[in-house]
Amino acid sequence: MIDNVPGYFAAGHFFITFAALFIYVCNMELVLLSGGSGKRLWPLSNNARSKQFLPLLEKNDGGMESMLQRVVRQAGEAGLSENITIATNAAQMDVIINQLGDSVSVVTEPERRDTFPAIALAASYLSLKKACPDDEIVVIMPCDPFTEAGYFETIRRMAHVAEQDAAELVLMGITPTYPSEKFGYVVPRYETGGTEMEYRMVQRFTEKPTVDVARELLKQGAFWNGGVFAFRLGYMMDIVRRYMKSDSFEDTRARYGEFPKISFDYEVAEKAGSVAVVPFDGQWKDLGTWNALTGELHHNVLGNAILGPHCNNTHVINELQYPIFVDGVSDVVVAACPDGILVCAKDDSENIKKYVQDLGHRPMYEERRWGTYRVLDDTVYADGRHSLTKSITLKPGKNISYQIHHFRSEVWTFVQGEGLLVLDGEVRRVSAGETVIVPVGHFHAIKAISELTFIEVQTGHPLIEEDIERYDWQWPE
Amino acid sequence: MIDNVPGYFAAGHFFITFAALFIYVCNMELVLLSGGSGKRLWPLSNNARSKQFLPLLEKNDGGMESMLQRVVRQAGEAGLSENITIATNAAQMDVIINQLGDSVSVVTEPERRDTFPAIALAASYLSLKKACPDDEIVVIMPCDPFTEAGYFETIRRMAHVAEQDAAELVLMGITPTYPSEKFGYVVPRYETGGTEMEYRMVQRFTEKPTVDVARELLKQGAFWNGGVFAFRLGYMMDIVRRYMKSDSFEDTRARYGEFPKISFDYEVAEKAGSVAVVPFDGQWKDLGTWNALTGELHHNVLGNAILGPHCNNTHVINELQYPIFVDGVSDVVVAACPDGILVCAKDDSENIKKYVQDLGHRPMYEERRWGTYRVLDDTVYADGRHSLTKSITLKPGKNISYQIHHFRSEVWTFVQGEGLLVLDGEVRRVSAGETVIVPVGHFHAIKAISELTFIEVQTGHPLIEEDIERYDWQWPE
Repeated sequence: MIDNVPGYFAAGHFFITFAALFIYVCNMELVLLSGGSGKRLWPLSNNARSKQFLPLLEKNDGGMESMLQRVVRQAGEAGLSENITIATNAAQMDVIINQLGDSVSVVTEPERRDTFPAIALAASYLSLKKACPDDEIVVIMPCDPFTEAGYFETIRRMAHVAEQDAAELVLMGITPTYPSEKFGYVVPRYETGGTEMEYRMVQRFTEKPTVDVARELLKQGAFWNGGVFAFRLGYMMDIVRRYMKSDSFEDTRARYGEFPKISFDYEVAEKAGSVAVVPFDGQWKDLGTWNALTGELHHNVLGNAILGPHCNNTHVINELQYPIFVDGVSDVVVAACPDGILVCAKDDSENIKKYVQDLGHRPMYEERRWGTYRVLDDTVYADGRHSLTKSITLKPGKNISYQIHHFRSEVWTFVQGEGLLVLDGEVRRVSAGETVIVPVGHFHAIKAISELTFIEVQTGHPLIEEDIERYDWQWPE
Repeated sequence: MIDNVPGYFAAGHFFITFAALFIYVCNMELVLLSGGSGKRLWPLSNNARSKQFLPLLEKNDGGMESMLQRVVRQAGEAGLSENITIATNAAQMDVIINQLGDSVSVVTEPERRDTFPAIALAASYLSLKKACPDDEIVVIMPCDPFTEAGYFETIRRMAHVAEQDAAELVLMGITPTYPSEKFGYVVPRYETGGTEMEYRMVQRFTEKPTVDVARELLKQGAFWNGGVFAFRLGYMMDIVRRYMKSDSFEDTRARYGEFPKISFDYEVAEKAGSVAVVPFDGQWKDLGTWNALTGELHHNVLGNAILGPHCNNTHVINELQYPIFVDGVSDVVVAACPDGILVCAKDDSENIKKYVQDLGHRPMYEERRWGTYRVLDDTVYADGRHSLTKSITLKPGKNISYQIHHFRSEVWTFVQGEGLLVLDGEVRRVSAGETVIVPVGHFHAIKAISELTFIEVQTGHPLIEEDIERYDWQWPE
């Protein structure tokens, strides 16, 4: 029997931990805000591919993941993956589905407004579509902090505090590491707080102070506002109903323009009757600049590139087929993809946005719900004729919509896999080695059976991106 | 009459100059040696596109030219363009014709040997094919010095000295600017020389000395051996006949392997009974490294690129469609083309050759006799199937040969211009917007009527570069 004692203690310890977890695993809804666009990580980020979708972070198994995939994985590892909703805009819908599959719900705003309308729409989805009860705890968080397991433990604690009804709104306070001018600050009242100092009540907010003021705030024990909020769904829906009384999510979404363009901080956090802050002092970074992002890469080279012997702290990320050789430059980032090629001192990389704004007129690489494409060539000839050549890969079982173009013809040469082609209503099997000509004005669609790649040559006079009409098509089983 | 005096003198002066020119404009044959390959200017130079073919130098009219085009233009401006022969290897034939058209003769060695066989073959061409007389003056020079008009004036003087039979061999001596270890030296005898010091007799040669020896040589008035030689054709043919007695150029070329692998300097210059040197002290550079080449560029940016404000003495050459943005790096060269992308401190750029030797397995851009092509995509898929996508442009009136492939199919989508297509012996007109499928095992050829561009998608399993059989085809007039 004595032999069993350690096992007994271990089992007992497990039971206690499990019981503690059980208290924390409330019926929580986690909403990830996925917005942003722009070119601070140009050329890899563009209007269709924000920084959170770049597959540059290495997992423990050596595979690569994006910031969004990392956050969703971490949430899952913390036991929070049951009820994840991503609030985003229509342009990001495809890439989110491509990266996360059907494991999450996605709510898209019909137009870009601000964080209050976006969160109002997500709350309406949970309440009106998903029929979550008013006392459900909702946690809102950004989709791309570079953080650690403790962050998600803090989210659990926030949900716990919200469940205790300690405050109308509970937010995460990041322990500041320096008096930054870039963040909003949360000043707690120190005479208050829950058991074991689990939270503090908030006295006031201060948005982006000067360095001197920030230094004062740090002395007062202020936190950075991490943009993570927990509340009961009914609390938020009461605010939503002040702007819109609606019985269905579809109706709310159709009337999205009625919500005021205002941030969640101003509309909700600063007006709340009571706000609690739960501190987090672990790793928390925004990998929004090349300097910050390359600091977290495990390797100096990603993709087809060689660093010569005279480089120090130089990173190369190459998504092109062309090999890159770099030598004799230190503290530099080289990033190449079909949108462009960046060679920049890391110290100067925060300011590239203004210079590259007008470089390149169209995305040259996109992730879509059905797969990905790369632009291989985009040329306008002397006679005004335009040709656009792409390499397009569809995931097995995925299809592009049944469509027609009025000004361009397309030639598809299949180079990998098998698929089902529809041309003017006729369905047939196609496979690598075949070529299909889609003349102007003919209905067409393609569905992958196995992973399917084809080279598409568009020609037109000129080519118009919007020259596409989509129709319904019932694929055979 | 007095009014006419200046005119009279001017006319007289002109007559004297003209007479002097007349002496110098002998019936000279100019042979340009075009060899080299390799990767010192990687990625722009490759085995098919040596440095002399890179169109990076700006002409007075703002247009661009290659080193070879510049030398031929300068020779023309010096009145030497009548009889130019380019001695080269088969791989360079197409690009030479593409760059110079039919204005020059081209002699190709059937295999690479050394400079003596190459010059022997060119001399045989002049003697046996072009039927030049034995007393014809031949001047041999490299095809790519970055030099000035005075260089070609020196060539005239060399021909003049050779015509006077002052020596069996006349060579150009470059006035040294520093005690270089990289050059061969020519030491003159200073008690000798022609009228007005036009030339000196050569005492001895010294190949690549140490710096100390070079310093001594400079004190003795030695010259760098510029690799420019003038001789009577008969003199060279006597040496040629020691190795090969032949009545026809074709026969000489077929037996090319019988010539010893030896340099012209060792086989001819160092064995000559008498050698004269004609000095040249003007601009003379080898633009064979990125450091040297960028020093002669008129602009810091060639192609689609932007330099940010924190760059100094940085050059960007972009032959890709993707835009490049560079900031925060100084004394750096960025060069991008389908063969690869280089980012290198200029001081480290002399050593790139060893690192890039194995980067990229095939040329991604080539100039051919009929035009140019760019590789857009080159992918081998999981099932072993290979696809290669190219953009191919034919010059008006030019054609690719009538050919057949046994392992690959090709799909041509015409995106610019008009041409004549032959498919299995049937000729028809094609134009932009049309697509032609060339299945495995079908004879095909294409000829441009106007400038013709098409996107070619090759698929095979695998693709073999040499999978091509060429046949004769008589194009209709």
